[in-house]
Amino acid sequence: MVRIILCGFGVVGQSFAKLLLSRSEDLYAKHGLKARIVGVFDSKGSAASSAGIDLNRLLETKKLYGNIAKYHNKEKKANGLDMINGMEAEVLIETTPSNYKDAEPGMSHIVSAMKRGLHVVTVNKGPLALAFPSLIELAAYNQVQLKFSGTVGGGTPILDYAKNSLRGERIVSFQGILNGTTNYILTNMAGGMNFKEALSDAKKKGYVEADESLDIEGFDAAAKLVILANWIMDMKVTIMDIKRKGIRDVTTTDITNARSRRSAVKLIASCNRDLEVSPREIPLDDPLCVNGTLNAITFNSEHSGQQTIIGRGAGGMETASSILRDLLDIKQEVGKI
Amino acid sequence: MVRIILCGFGVVGQSFAKLLLSRSEDLYAKHGLKARIVGVFDSKGSAASSAGIDLNRLLETKKLYGNIAKYHNKEKKANGLDMINGMEAEVLIETTPSNYKDAEPGMSHIVSAMKRGLHVVTVNKGPLALAFPSLIELAAYNQVQLKFSGTVGGGTPILDYAKNSLRGERIVSFQGILNGTTNYILTNMAGGMNFKEALSDAKKKGYVEADESLDIEGFDAAAKLVILANWIMDMKVTIMDIKRKGIRDVTTTDITNARSRRSAVKLIASCNRDLEVSPREIPLDDPLCVNGTLNAITFNSEHSGQQTIIGRGAGGMETASSILRDLLDIKQEVGKI
Repeated sequence: MVRIILCGFGVVGQSFAKLLLSRSEDLYAKHGLKARIVGVFDSKGSAASSAGIDLNRLLETKKLYGNIAKYHNKEKKANGLDMINGMEAEVLIETTPSNYKDAEPGMSHIVSAMKRGLHVVTVNKGPLALAFPSLIELAAYNQVQLKFSGTVGGGTPILDYAKNSLRGERIVSFQGILNGTTNYILTNMAGGMNFKEALSDAKKKGYVEADESLDIEGFDAAAKLVILANWIMDMKVTIMDIKRKGIRDVTTTDITNARSRRSAVKLIASCNRDLEVSPREIPLDDPLCVNGTLNAITFNSEHSGQQTIIGRGAGGMETASSILRDLLDIKQEVGKI
Repeated sequence: MVRIILCGFGVVGQSFAKLLLSRSEDLYAKHGLKARIVGVFDSKGSAASSAGIDLNRLLETKKLYGNIAKYHNKEKKANGLDMINGMEAEVLIETTPSNYKDAEPGMSHIVSAMKRGLHVVTVNKGPLALAFPSLIELAAYNQVQLKFSGTVGGGTPILDYAKNSLRGERIVSFQGILNGTTNYILTNMAGGMNFKEALSDAKKKGYVEADESLDIEGFDAAAKLVILANWIMDMKVTIMDIKRKGIRDVTTTDITNARSRRSAVKLIASCNRDLEVSPREIPLDDPLCVNGTLNAITFNSEHSGQQTIIGRGAGGMETASSILRDLLDIKQEVGKI
């Protein structure tokens, strides 16, 4: 039995709850995984039950009231850290929004949980972007697992592919389109919109983060680059080490000029000698040159040439699916939890 | 110490020998793998040494005489099965040419080796295409590992990605360009050549199998589809179950018509309800629509949407790299060998 504390109950948290409901039998039969969410909190409220929260009722409550506090008869004010420090559990799942200033509240959640001996699955990139090397050390020191496969590529297991499927092979460098929102905007600009129109369309579709600079200025792509560089290339870097330039200054002229060279302008995150996020021209027939909200990454390997993985970069169910993968990994690596 | 018998010393076998030479220190330091080739044979000769063959001298011999028999002072006639049945070894690596009639000589090599308790790494697709389900059973019965990651995607670990990186996820269907030679021909036809010219150009480049029908008639793609269907979808099928149509009848008119619909004609192997290899139109902006000798496959997953992997499909060093990956896997799964 894995007892879980879930931080954040937005799109990803709710999708994860739905996934657990729909897959519970299959997960037990195929992987021996029995998971029970014992605590959930977000910025507005919390719900807890050591016997396991009724996820159907929790989802219903959220839908009716836009808030989970009413899950209990008496409204409970969320105090996430109290829950993390007080409840019996094995795993913390961190899904609160990424923040690249101080990484809070996710940083405190993760650090507190690991200090208490909880394994952590995070899809929040903030703590990793600001402190990847020290969080890995803290996990090792406390002998807990820290998993984050949903932070890069959403449901597309890019990190796993590079680390495991390519074992015995050396990755020399890589470059990728790691942010779907900016790719959507640049694709629309290639279709004739100007930057402002394309941004406004992306906002209408719900693709843009509440703080638009996270996408537009390249913070999100830079955070993913930090995670890839640490995890795959054994670098010890943070977001401060990334040379970063967003897409705000990309003009329709740049895009037209690129097209005359049979290329497209894409926001590329690359790890070669330097770590850099910036708009660059990519040949139209390069497998990396994908459109819409797709993400893509090309690994340059020593013996197997270039390998490109393309997939949806985000989405609640995709990310929830990556959390499940991490849970299964923890179960496998730790043994009985 | 892993003692290896290597069947076949063509491009792949030689690349593997070179890879072992260049990586031996690193393999031991990073993965604890010490590998020694104790026997090598091909259709023209053989070399054996229980203390380990001097790979530099073996490669030199092959280069000078086009034959490895002169590795010893007296010329030795190859008798592969005697070697497999007589020598002390832990792993058989099978790299002889694929054959879709009776899968020989690879089939006898693999079956004899497994019966003797040797683990097997094969990049020869013939035995798997004709008898995947029974070979898997034979491996289980003899408690040996049967690995074949180089049979699909060359150095691109497609099988591993689908089986492992997507664990906890369900693959519903997939479709791919699994043969680089036909993709090269179709790409050249899209560039203006007719089929005959494009085939002749591919032959000049050394991309076409000695028996051209293996590529052109879709046997190679069908064999890979069999392996994917068995391994990833848990089907129990052989090449007899594949609906197969090659590219010989594709005309420049078909290709021009496709382009007017912003599509390209590709030889697609698909697993949906049916298993089929045939030329089909793919939209130009589909990530699957790659050119030249590239391979690509799109997995349709239940929760993570479509995921596409693109890479070089073949090449001596790429395939050798996949053999190394399989060896590392065997070492990890079996423990001390």
